[in-house]
Amino acid sequence: MAVRVAVAGASGYAGGEVLRLLLSHPEAEIGALTGNSNAGQSLGSLQPHLGPLAGRTLEATTPEVLAGHDVVFLALPHGQSAAVAAQLGDDVLVIDMGADHRLRDSADWDRFYGAPHAGTWPYGLPELPGARAALAGSKRVAVPGCFPTAVSLALFPAYAEHLAEPEAVIVAATGTSGAGKALKTNLLGAEVMGSVTPYGVGGVHRHTPEMVQNLSPVAGRPVSVSFTPTLVPMARGILATCSAKALPGTTAESLRAAYEKAYADEPFVQLLPEGQWPATKSVHGSNAVHIQVAHDPSARRIIAVSAIDNLTKGTAGGAVQSMNIALGLPEQLGLSTIGVAP
Amino acid sequence: MAVRVAVAGASGYAGGEVLRLLLSHPEAEIGALTGNSNAGQSLGSLQPHLGPLAGRTLEATTPEVLAGHDVVFLALPHGQSAAVAAQLGDDVLVIDMGADHRLRDSADWDRFYGAPHAGTWPYGLPELPGARAALAGSKRVAVPGCFPTAVSLALFPAYAEHLAEPEAVIVAATGTSGAGKALKTNLLGAEVMGSVTPYGVGGVHRHTPEMVQNLSPVAGRPVSVSFTPTLVPMARGILATCSAKALPGTTAESLRAAYEKAYADEPFVQLLPEGQWPATKSVHGSNAVHIQVAHDPSARRIIAVSAIDNLTKGTAGGAVQSMNIALGLPEQLGLSTIGVAP
Amino acid sequence: MAVRVAVAGASGYAGGEVLRLLLSHPEAEIGALTGNSNAGQSLGSLQPHLGPLAGRTLEATTPEVLAGHDVVFLALPHGQSAAVAAQLGDDVLVIDMGADHRLRDSADWDRFYGAPHAGTWPYGLPELPGARAALAGSKRVAVPGCFPTAVSLALFPAYAEHLAEPEAVIVAATGTSGAGKALKTNLLGAEVMGSVTPYGVGGVHRHTPEMVQNLSPVAGRPVSVSFTPTLVPMARGILATCSAKALPGTTAESLRAAYEKAYADEPFVQLLPEGQWPATKSVHGSNAVHIQVAHDPSARRIIAVSAIDNLTKGTAGGAVQSMNIALGLPEQLGLSTIGVAP
Amino acid sequence: MAVRVAVAGASGYAGGEVLRLLLSHPEAEIGALTGNSNAGQSLGSLQPHLGPLAGRTLEATTPEVLAGHDVVFLALPHGQSAAVAAQLGDDVLVIDMGADHRLRDSADWDRFYGAPHAGTWPYGLPELPGARAALAGSKRVAVPGCFPTAVSLALFPAYAEHLAEPEAVIVAATGTSGAGKALKTNLLGAEVMGSVTPYGVGGVHRHTPEMVQNLSPVAGRPVSVSFTPTLVPMARGILATCSAKALPGTTAESLRAAYEKAYADEPFVQLLPEGQWPATKSVHGSNAVHIQVAHDPSARRIIAVSAIDNLTKGTAGGAVQSMNIALGLPEQLGLSTIGVAP
Repeated sequence: MAVRVAVAGASGYAGGEVLRLLLSHPEAEIGALTGNSNAGQSLGSLQPHLGPLAGRTLEATTPEVLAGHDVVFLALPHGQSAAVAAQLGDDVLVIDMGADHRLRDSADWDRFYGAPHAGTWPYGLPELPGARAALAGSKRVAVPGCFPTAVSLALFPAYAEHLAEPEAVIVAATGTSGAGKALKTNLLGAEVMGSVTPYGVGGVHRHTPEMVQNLSPVAGRPVSVSFTPTLVPMARGILATCSAKALPGTTAESLRAAYEKAYADEPFVQLLPEGQWPATKSVHGSNAVHIQVAHDPSARRIIAVSAIDNLTKGTAGGAVQSMNIALGLPEQLGLSTIGVAP
Repeated sequence: MAVRVAVAGASGYAGGEVLRLLLSHPEAEIGALTGNSNAGQSLGSLQPHLGPLAGRTLEATTPEVLAGHDVVFLALPHGQSAAVAAQLGDDVLVIDMGADHRLRDSADWDRFYGAPHAGTWPYGLPELPGARAALAGSKRVAVPGCFPTAVSLALFPAYAEHLAEPEAVIVAATGTSGAGKALKTNLLGAEVMGSVTPYGVGGVHRHTPEMVQNLSPVAGRPVSVSFTPTLVPMARGILATCSAKALPGTTAESLRAAYEKAYADEPFVQLLPEGQWPATKSVHGSNAVHIQVAHDPSARRIIAVSAIDNLTKGTAGGAVQSMNIALGLPEQLGLSTIGVAP
Repeated sequence: MAVRVAVAGASGYAGGEVLRLLLSHPEAEIGALTGNSNAGQSLGSLQPHLGPLAGRTLEATTPEVLAGHDVVFLALPHGQSAAVAAQLGDDVLVIDMGADHRLRDSADWDRFYGAPHAGTWPYGLPELPGARAALAGSKRVAVPGCFPTAVSLALFPAYAEHLAEPEAVIVAATGTSGAGKALKTNLLGAEVMGSVTPYGVGGVHRHTPEMVQNLSPVAGRPVSVSFTPTLVPMARGILATCSAKALPGTTAESLRAAYEKAYADEPFVQLLPEGQWPATKSVHGSNAVHIQVAHDPSARRIIAVSAIDNLTKGTAGGAVQSMNIALGLPEQLGLSTIGVAP
Repeated sequence: MAVRVAVAGASGYAGGEVLRLLLSHPEAEIGALTGNSNAGQSLGSLQPHLGPLAGRTLEATTPEVLAGHDVVFLALPHGQSAAVAAQLGDDVLVIDMGADHRLRDSADWDRFYGAPHAGTWPYGLPELPGARAALAGSKRVAVPGCFPTAVSLALFPAYAEHLAEPEAVIVAATGTSGAGKALKTNLLGAEVMGSVTPYGVGGVHRHTPEMVQNLSPVAGRPVSVSFTPTLVPMARGILATCSAKALPGTTAESLRAAYEKAYADEPFVQLLPEGQWPATKSVHGSNAVHIQVAHDPSARRIIAVSAIDNLTKGTAGGAVQSMNIALGLPEQLGLSTIGVAP
């Protein structure tokens, strides 16, 4: 089976990463590559790390160019995916790596994004309870945000076993590729090297409602999320430090058991041996999620920490994993759990 | 007035930083410089950034070498300061940049450090309520830990005005100089560049009881602290993201007012204009503390973020500031609020 | 004596650095701060590390705003300094941190910059033979480029003593602040962290003719320069690795002697002890130049390496040093030879 | 065909990288993993990025442990490979990633390494003229040094076509993993971040004679090499900036043609389109070599720049490529030309 794939938005970081992964995917055949402002340029000049595709030229993002593929990945700014998807047939698997189809609550969408809500698609985080089944055979996939991926996987096992109060406090460090290739002064190398700074503080980051949406059903009641992202001097990676007050009766043992149960059969999630904490470099370029959890009896809190590569498991790897499930391919095809370190 | 100063432990990061500051201090005259394993080596080979002292040679840390100074800074591994201090006269100002004399509760000391408790000295965080008075004229000063400095200044105004519940949740990012010059694999450049990782998770980090000790008296009741430090790829700097549940009635306005009140007259603390968040680079090499605070009504929490340079305000700058107060010099002498950026 | 100073272009890296230094300069009084696209914004939002100036507002760069100062620093894009300088009186000390007035040969200017040549001003590299005298009392100063500063100081002693052939080969690493705050994709943090890349290869970099201009008079014959700059993952600093074929008779001893002779009385140049090589971090934020030199008998070459901070000695520190000389102040006033490390 | 592979020295950077590559190699079956000081520890604790091998335990490096494999990779400190290799049968393919068997001239070995010379093995840089044939079917392979790999590939085409004088001047930037996991103060993260520094200056770096050995036969006369390595703030990657005086008649066109000829059929070498310069990040984690070349008519020099990943093509990737050739497998098996960027 050869799967013919197109990528809309191939000049950005998410587009480049999905191409990097597809180049190693045994069933994928890379078709059209599009970009708007960069149409006409060679991929070699825009993504010089993708040697085998250096001679390819970006085309404009039009229905004609995207036609004739089995799968279309959308790596577009938020608000642009719905219009492109509408032009693609129902028989094409459309995988939106942007935010447009993640949220179920239109009010959340309005509040955090402020554009008309494009609707909700099956959610591409297979490790969440119930998610894998919804993806199988689907022709539309909404890839999760990078932070919600890291946070939801760090916390849901504790909520699934009712070990924590429904008030989560999260501080996550992200590499600067998470902000995309946008030209902003605060993303210049001279600004970010040697500096750590928070942004979107106080409940205003757009990924917050997505975390609430993921955790509340597992907890069986509304979970509030206090989320503070920080920008750190690295290109890739997210480390999410998540905590919540322990419910009475929670012990280090019951906590560990909850995570072992949740991740016993997950190919991409590695619950580290006790005492070993995740490091973003260990998952660099891989689709792995490293997780560790602790119980702090003095502060009466559980602390769960996850590390992912924001561009791989946090975006393009999650997208390819979801593609595999949607197409009925082996879920791990073309994806690695081996990081590039040091 | 010329103040003759010795530094014990001049080859490490804390020792180097206090020398960097003293070189610009108009009243300080740099006397003996000691080190144990490095005795006999030139400072130029160990601290090549301290050009004016390049020709100096390190001596052994003995009472004879340290005698005859007005001030002795101790930049020693924990557990070693008490013995050295005991050999110095009561008329010498001894400033301990290590942990030995910070904690008031011997049980805390035993639990987190496991050595005999050396006693408690006046605490060198002048911005804390009551601390400045205790430092004036003192001949002994315990310099705070770098994390407790960042965290206590970020949170105490909220507790002073009774705006937050006494359960603080803190995640702090630190540059790797915070771990000192110790030769450990996890501190190698190849390991830390491109990686973020937590350590001392779950209530076991030694700075935790010091935070509790600082915040509880201000709050008027025991404050619990959940503290997670993370190592990030930069040499210097701490960003502390601190939060606590807002008490009923707390508003963005009352929160802002509490911080404006606390820091109106503090020369080293800059409460940033609303909407501007601290970045560690802005305080690089300076004694400044940048702070911002927000109220998240959805999660019903306050979030306070502070940025310091761990080696300056977090260690050697705080030490010099305390020296100035103890000696009756102007508090800002030889200290800057200007960062080296970008 | 209070010197009233204005800075045109205060929002960029060079402008910010000259302000950082002037804030510690005992004779400087900071007057007008201007910027064009940023006029009306607070300096605190643009240069948050300059705490004491946070409340200042940028004005437009007009003759009226710049009037009434003793010294005006121009931190403008190349091609813009001449017009602004023409509006300032002959009694005002104008210090151009841009390229406009460095080159003596109009043909070089035309070839490398392509704009009308604005003329040549006294050259602000006091350590070069003859340069200090030309600066004393001058009302116009052309601050050297950052690379020519590092390269000229690394090589001229060898040429002054006729120890090397007049064909210099230079590879220099620079921090990304050297490219300014311009918004370019290749300067984004995600691009520069973890990457080294050359640019301006093959004799086309604009600083090349300036190096030729500096070295040829010292050598007494035309010196050719092969110059390759590389962008490395740090915010500040230049390491220039310079070599030339040794002339017959050159020895390690004659080489060392040449450098000792050249720099015996230079306050900002530190010829390191034999065997110790410069590191950019040792001069971070300082006006120091660290230099080491070696003779390779197998390859029959001399290798001289210098480290500077591109924004300090390479730009704003050199500018303040020249200001001091031009005004008859002590040359070291307000400048440090102490780096901020680690 | 399944190839059973052992790795001696699996806890270091070279050992970890060869395991990373072998995990994706379709014919390799990973057998014994050894380490001396780390014997008994889990690989998961030492190389946490190698998820699939996390449960493996390191054994001691003994003949018994290494017996029964088709291939043994030696990732040992120099001077230790010969003794281990002597204990392995002649029918085992032994691939030495250390320096012991690279140099043909015992005098060079004595001068630069100072231990008894272990002899010379076929040289694992297949792109060098004649090298591929010597590797085919060999049971012993000496993997080149990382710098000689980058430098030889950057320069040999110019020498093969007699376009350059036999005096090469090379400045190379390397990530700090090149120094291995050795615990040295100058390799600490706090030291290397924000700093560039040279080392081994003046003809004393051990890789110098290896470059001479590679280039001289191609040039048909002795080539002298002036080599200066610099340590830059990144974990991986080498950028080699190489130049030599152009011989009369050399033009930009003849230069380009020489490189096109040399690399037309090389699967891992990408001569970039004119005007595009290599960046280390583009080859991060890949076995690709990116090369560009220019002619500087003013300085009458050719400048060739190459980028490799020091751990992949510079060590473990070159080793696997050589293994493939030695075993008669397709040369590209298990190796990628796609970098992990940004």
